Amino acid sequence: MKDASIGIGLLGLGTVGSGVYKLLRENASQIAQRIGKRLEVRMVLERDPERARILGIAPATLARDFEEIIDDPQIQIVVELLGGVEPARAFMLKALRRGKHVVTANKDVVAAYGKELFEAADAGRVDFYFEASVGGGIPVIHALKENLAANKIEEVIGIVNGTTNYILTRMSEEQIEFSEALQAAQEAGYAEADPSADIDGYDAARKIAILASIAFNSRVTPENVFVEGITGIVPQDVIYARELGYVIKLLAIAREYNEGVEVRVHPAFLSRNHPLAAVQGVFNAIYINGNAVGETMFYGQGAGQMPTASAVAGDLMEIARNLESGATGRFPCSCYLDKHVIPIGQVHTNYYLRMIVKDKPGVMATIAGVLGNHQVSIASVIQKRTLFTNGERMAEIVLITHEVLEQNVQDALAVLKSLSIMGSIENMIRVEGEPRP
Amino acid sequence: MKDASIGIGLLGLGTVGSGVYKLLRENASQIAQRIGKRLEVRMVLERDPERARILGIAPATLARDFEEIIDDPQIQIVVELLGGVEPARAFMLKALRRGKHVVTANKDVVAAYGKELFEAADAGRVDFYFEASVGGGIPVIHALKENLAANKIEEVIGIVNGTTNYILTRMSEEQIEFSEALQAAQEAGYAEADPSADIDGYDAARKIAILASIAFNSRVTPENVFVEGITGIVPQDVIYARELGYVIKLLAIAREYNEGVEVRVHPAFLSRNHPLAAVQGVFNAIYINGNAVGETMFYGQGAGQMPTASAVAGDLMEIARNLESGATGRFPCSCYLDKHVIPIGQVHTNYYLRMIVKDKPGVMATIAGVLGNHQVSIASVIQKRTLFTNGERMAEIVLITHEVLEQNVQDALAVLKSLSIMGSIENMIRVEGEPRP
Repeated sequence: MKDASIGIGLLGLGTVGSGVYKLLRENASQIAQRIGKRLEVRMVLERDPERARILGIAPATLARDFEEIIDDPQIQIVVELLGGVEPARAFMLKALRRGKHVVTANKDVVAAYGKELFEAADAGRVDFYFEASVGGGIPVIHALKENLAANKIEEVIGIVNGTTNYILTRMSEEQIEFSEALQAAQEAGYAEADPSADIDGYDAARKIAILASIAFNSRVTPENVFVEGITGIVPQDVIYARELGYVIKLLAIAREYNEGVEVRVHPAFLSRNHPLAAVQGVFNAIYINGNAVGETMFYGQGAGQMPTASAVAGDLMEIARNLESGATGRFPCSCYLDKHVIPIGQVHTNYYLRMIVKDKPGVMATIAGVLGNHQVSIASVIQKRTLFTNGERMAEIVLITHEVLEQNVQDALAVLKSLSIMGSIENMIRVEGEPRP
Repeated sequence: MKDASIGIGLLGLGTVGSGVYKLLRENASQIAQRIGKRLEVRMVLERDPERARILGIAPATLARDFEEIIDDPQIQIVVELLGGVEPARAFMLKALRRGKHVVTANKDVVAAYGKELFEAADAGRVDFYFEASVGGGIPVIHALKENLAANKIEEVIGIVNGTTNYILTRMSEEQIEFSEALQAAQEAGYAEADPSADIDGYDAARKIAILASIAFNSRVTPENVFVEGITGIVPQDVIYARELGYVIKLLAIAREYNEGVEVRVHPAFLSRNHPLAAVQGVFNAIYINGNAVGETMFYGQGAGQMPTASAVAGDLMEIARNLESGATGRFPCSCYLDKHVIPIGQVHTNYYLRMIVKDKPGVMATIAGVLGNHQVSIASVIQKRTLFTNGERMAEIVLITHEVLEQNVQDALAVLKSLSIMGSIENMIRVEGEPRP
């Protein structure tokens, strides 16, 4: 009864690949009932036979090479879970051009090579799905492509990196240093030995590039995204954030304006009342504002074996339905527009500034003057701790600005740095939302 | 160019109907770009010509009667936004049987007559979509049917009624009486003059019946749902909830066990750390636990003109894609199983009990004894205020139980009521989650 099943070629038995295999086996009867067909993993590409053995995969199911998979006419869908750029990208392109539908969780390839992949899918007249590439098991890509499609999407704000959210949550709960929180994340298995892609914001940048491309129907690649990581956040900032009614989160922000789209990843002060502010630990959430639906948020586990497998299997079931109804190719590339990406200097937002200055009369007036000269208007200012540096009495000044052009803030900071009263600019963190009076 | 558009017959120009009309007009070019076709409202059924005039709908577009709409071969989709059961139900059945696809926001009809409607859709070989019937603009029905379909869904917990969530939020923030909060909700336009369907829990019951039917692939109708409203909640309960680390929410709960499914709507103590606890005011959210994806939550505006219109228009676009690709009928009725519904007496959960008893030695031992005789084990107990009733000194006892069979609690309460030391059982509220030690 070959017709009663759909053949799958699975590339990679790492964490997610093993999860997909297990999920398709464990929930097999339910999946078959829901789509009217069995999903059958006919062949697996994995160099480590031990991984296959652990899962009870027969050696005969292991492919010699990728060619064997795409040459098998009974394999209709290729699931790419190798990770990294190559050979994942090359395999996907080949599979699509050869008329195999492709499902992937690979944010690196989707973010950087989405155009190429969709062109290949178009050439092969097949489906290309990648729900798992952003937000793990959270079905945010489908929501944007389908259910919210009648909306003009105005903004997408994501907490899309669990590692950094875990670190910032620990820093906030325990007022510990970044390095200590990072170590805790590594010990808990939430951060890699080389944590750079997470803590420097590149992982989040890839994900918001994907979301922005869909939301705004215009190709946004990781190079278009302004990126700043969380390594510069210190407990003092976390404490002031709380005092002022905020939490610090690594936000991935995409917005559309008449002039174009802005897409940026950086730590931000986020109002405690914002729906995203309650997202703790390794959880992810994506907040979407549409011109009809208003505020929505999608929350869940942004990584991990089974949540990611859930999204991959959901895509597989959707392709199976498309195959059943002869309706593959329902979702061609949605980047049919070409919108300008606004550079970070042209972004308007609010800023938290923390600086150490000489504690003398007139210092505050000088600072306010420099800011004022650059059209930076102060919403609130607090003179905090007194410190001694090299025996000199210094004051810590914390202020939050009204909304202003980023370039003006950068220019003002350059001038402030050069003043003789300035000890150091300790931090500049963008603030989401107009500060309360 | 008739082929470039899809014809819609719109039933009802009330709040949601007007919203759908406006949305299809305002976002028309984007919608057409995304699906490759225009969505054209060809005919409108509305008795009040003034409503049509306000929207700039030409009198010629107003249908004389429903027959005129289903007789029009150029109308492919009927959008039912009349509300109420009849004639909405009859019109939908007729349209489906005549081969028109149907989109509705009508939770009353979907919850009670889902089976009949799907049979009609099957007979007419057409699509029947109803995303807007639960959670307004939140795409939770699609998530359950598609993206999470590879999961065995273990529980669905919803805050699916904005009116009651608004009332409970106000009661919690301001420690006001229920009646005062209800009046505030009415003044703000969030509660109807006759608020019964909301505050007594029937609206939420219809919505959880729909969600449970999809999640568990088994028909659950409103009569299967245990329902208790929020009118019995007093400020004292709200205060104790906070003191004990909870918030009070009207929850719609559906869970699957080996023995069957439990489906219930009632106010509940919900741990402050639960993702649903942060859902404030008129917002809705649906928390879903799947065996692969783990915890997810979908948040947004559960009612209102444009959020609901967003969901209706999303369904229209999906049907348009189905028409384009010749793939209508992708989602037949998913209730192919017939699961037992567990009666409320057989449910296991935790309980908050508040009672006024005579303030005498040995009273606590007596109460504990009665509870113990019924296998009700106490997790924590606090003796609160001292009161005087008819000159007699009384004590208020607040306790939280461990997980126990509901019938045992009911039986224990019946015995307690009959005791001479008992002043009154003030409240019994179910608790979500095992209380912390």
